[in-house]
Amino acid sequence: MDLVSLADVRAAARDVAATVLRTPLLPTRWDDRLWLKPESLQPVGSFKLRGATHAVARLGAAQRARGVVTHSSGNHGQALAYAARAAGVPCTVVVPEGAPRVKVDQIRALGAEVVLVPRPRRAAEAERVAAETGAALVPPYDHRWIIAGQGTVGLEIVEDLPDVDLVLVPVGGGGLASGVATAVKALRPAATVLGVEPALAAEARESLATGEVVVWGVERTYRTSADGLRLPLSALTLAHLRAHLDGIVTVTEEEIRAAMGVLLRDARLVAEPSGAVALAAHLFHRAGLPTAGRTVAVVSGGNVDPDVLAAALPDAGPC
Amino acid sequence: MDLVSLADVRAAARDVAATVLRTPLLPTRWDDRLWLKPESLQPVGSFKLRGATHAVARLGAAQRARGVVTHSSGNHGQALAYAARAAGVPCTVVVPEGAPRVKVDQIRALGAEVVLVPRPRRAAEAERVAAETGAALVPPYDHRWIIAGQGTVGLEIVEDLPDVDLVLVPVGGGGLASGVATAVKALRPAATVLGVEPALAAEARESLATGEVVVWGVERTYRTSADGLRLPLSALTLAHLRAHLDGIVTVTEEEIRAAMGVLLRDARLVAEPSGAVALAAHLFHRAGLPTAGRTVAVVSGGNVDPDVLAAALPDAGPC
Repeated sequence: MDLVSLADVRAAARDVAATVLRTPLLPTRWDDRLWLKPESLQPVGSFKLRGATHAVARLGAAQRARGVVTHSSGNHGQALAYAARAAGVPCTVVVPEGAPRVKVDQIRALGAEVVLVPRPRRAAEAERVAAETGAALVPPYDHRWIIAGQGTVGLEIVEDLPDVDLVLVPVGGGGLASGVATAVKALRPAATVLGVEPALAAEARESLATGEVVVWGVERTYRTSADGLRLPLSALTLAHLRAHLDGIVTVTEEEIRAAMGVLLRDARLVAEPSGAVALAAHLFHRAGLPTAGRTVAVVSGGNVDPDVLAAALPDAGPC
Repeated sequence: MDLVSLADVRAAARDVAATVLRTPLLPTRWDDRLWLKPESLQPVGSFKLRGATHAVARLGAAQRARGVVTHSSGNHGQALAYAARAAGVPCTVVVPEGAPRVKVDQIRALGAEVVLVPRPRRAAEAERVAAETGAALVPPYDHRWIIAGQGTVGLEIVEDLPDVDLVLVPVGGGGLASGVATAVKALRPAATVLGVEPALAAEARESLATGEVVVWGVERTYRTSADGLRLPLSALTLAHLRAHLDGIVTVTEEEIRAAMGVLLRDARLVAEPSGAVALAAHLFHRAGLPTAGRTVAVVSGGNVDPDVLAAALPDAGPC
C-alpha cells in the first residue's frame, strides 16, 4: 500500500497555511518537560480543519466548481464547511436527524447546505448528492489527502521542539495519528509516537495486535464519552500506524474527565473528551510510557457540550 | 514625564522571548473581522508574565543574586515567581492571609518563598523584605519596565495583523493598556486603541476625563467580578494613556459573564472576568465603537475559580 510520505505532509503544509492556524506548543506550569499542542484553538475547534483544507486545496478547478460533500454532524462536517467557504467552494453536509441543533446551525452559519436524513441513510445520501451534483465526497479520515493534512500537526511539533522524545496523539479513525506518526518519525526517528484511545473504544489497539481492522460496533464504542474516537481504523490508517506508531495507551473515562479538568484549570483550554485522552495518558500512565523525556500531548479538539464541560470542572491539582 | 517608547518595547521583546509564549492571533468562527489575542495561554495564565520577565531581565547581576520581591496573591505574584525561576533569581511573594490556598500553593510550586501577612500589611512587608534582603521590589504595573514588557502584546498584534483597525484592551492599573497603546500607535498610527473596564470599576475613564488619577476605593471597585481590574491608574500609566489611548468603553457584569461564555464555547478559551471585558465590548457595544474594521480583542488572562467559570457556561450563541 502506498503510504503518505513526509514530502506529502510538507506539500499539505503549504496548501493549508492560509486557512489553518499555526498552533503554538504550550509549555505547562506543572511539568517543564510537557507541552500541549492545542488544536482546540483552530477556528472550528479541532485539527480536522487541516485535512479538510488540504483535501479542498487538492481538487482541480472543475471539481472545485462542482463542490464537496460529506456526512458528519461533528468536527469533520464543520471543518469541511469552513475549508470550503475559505476556498469559495460549494459544500453540502449530510447530517443525521436528531443531531444537536447548535451543531446544525454552526454548519449552516459557515455557508454549507445541510441535508437532514435518518441516521442509517447518511452515507447513501452523501453518495446520492455526489452523484447528482458532481460534488467530491470528502471522507473524515480514510484518504491520503486527509492523512497528509493532519500530518502537519506532527511537522509543527518537530519544528517547534526538535528534540522531542515522546508524542501522544489520540486515535479514532486514525487519520491524525497516521499523519503525525508519519511526520514525526521521518523528522526525528529517535522519538516515540504513541496513540491514545479510550479503553471503552480500543479498536486501534486490537487492530494493531491482530494486524486487521477490528470493528467493535456502536453498541460497544458508544460507551465512551470520547465521541470523536468511536470509529474503527481503515485499511489505509492501519497500514500507516503499523509502519510508524510505537504503540497504544488506553485511558479510562475517569481519567479523561480528570484530564479535561486539568486542561481547564491549569492550561486554560476547553477540550472535548476526545481531545483530553493524550494528556490523560501522560497524567495517569506515565510509569508505563517508554520515556519520561520531552513530551507533547496533542489536544485534538474542544467542541464539547456545556453539561459535559461542567462535569469536568476541576477542584484539585493536576498531579 | 519620560514615556516608554517603541524602542523600549522592542528591547523588551528581545528580553522576554525565551520565557514568554508568542501567542497567536486566533481568528473567530463567528466574525471574520475579529481576532483574539489569548494571553490566557501563557504558562501562568496571564500577560503579567511579560512585564515580570522583562523586569527580571533588566536587573544587574548583583541585584539578580539578591532576588526580587512583590506583594500579590494574583496573576502578578505567579508571573514574577515563574519569571524569577526561569532566570534563576530568588523570589519572595507577600500574600495576604486568607488568599485562596490553591493560589498560594501555585506560587510555592514555582519555587518562590511565600510570606503570609494580614492584608493591610502587605505593602509594608514587601518593603521590609526588600530592605532586609536587598531584593528588588517589582510592582505590578507602575514601572517603565513592566509597561514595556506588556507592550510586547501590541508589538505582536501588529506583526501578525499589520492592517489592524481597532485594538480592545482591558484597563486596570493600566500597565497592559499603556504598553499596548504605545506599541500599536507607533507602528500603525491609523489604528484605534480603546481601553475596556467594568462599569463598576471605571476609574480609568474618570481619570482620563479629569486628567488626574481618580481612586474609587475597594468598597466600590470590589463590586465587579473582574478582580484584575479593581486597581486605579498610576501617574505613570495615566500619562501613557493620555498620550496614546483613544478612549474607554465600559461593560456590565452581565456582559462580562456572557463574553466568558462565548470564549468557552466558541473559542475554546477559559478567560477570567478581567480577561473577557475586551470581547464583551466588541459583542455588546459595537455600535458605539469608532470603527467596525479589523479588530483584535486582548484576552488578558484565564485564572478563574471553578464556580465563576461554571456560572459562565454558555447555552446560547455569540450574537
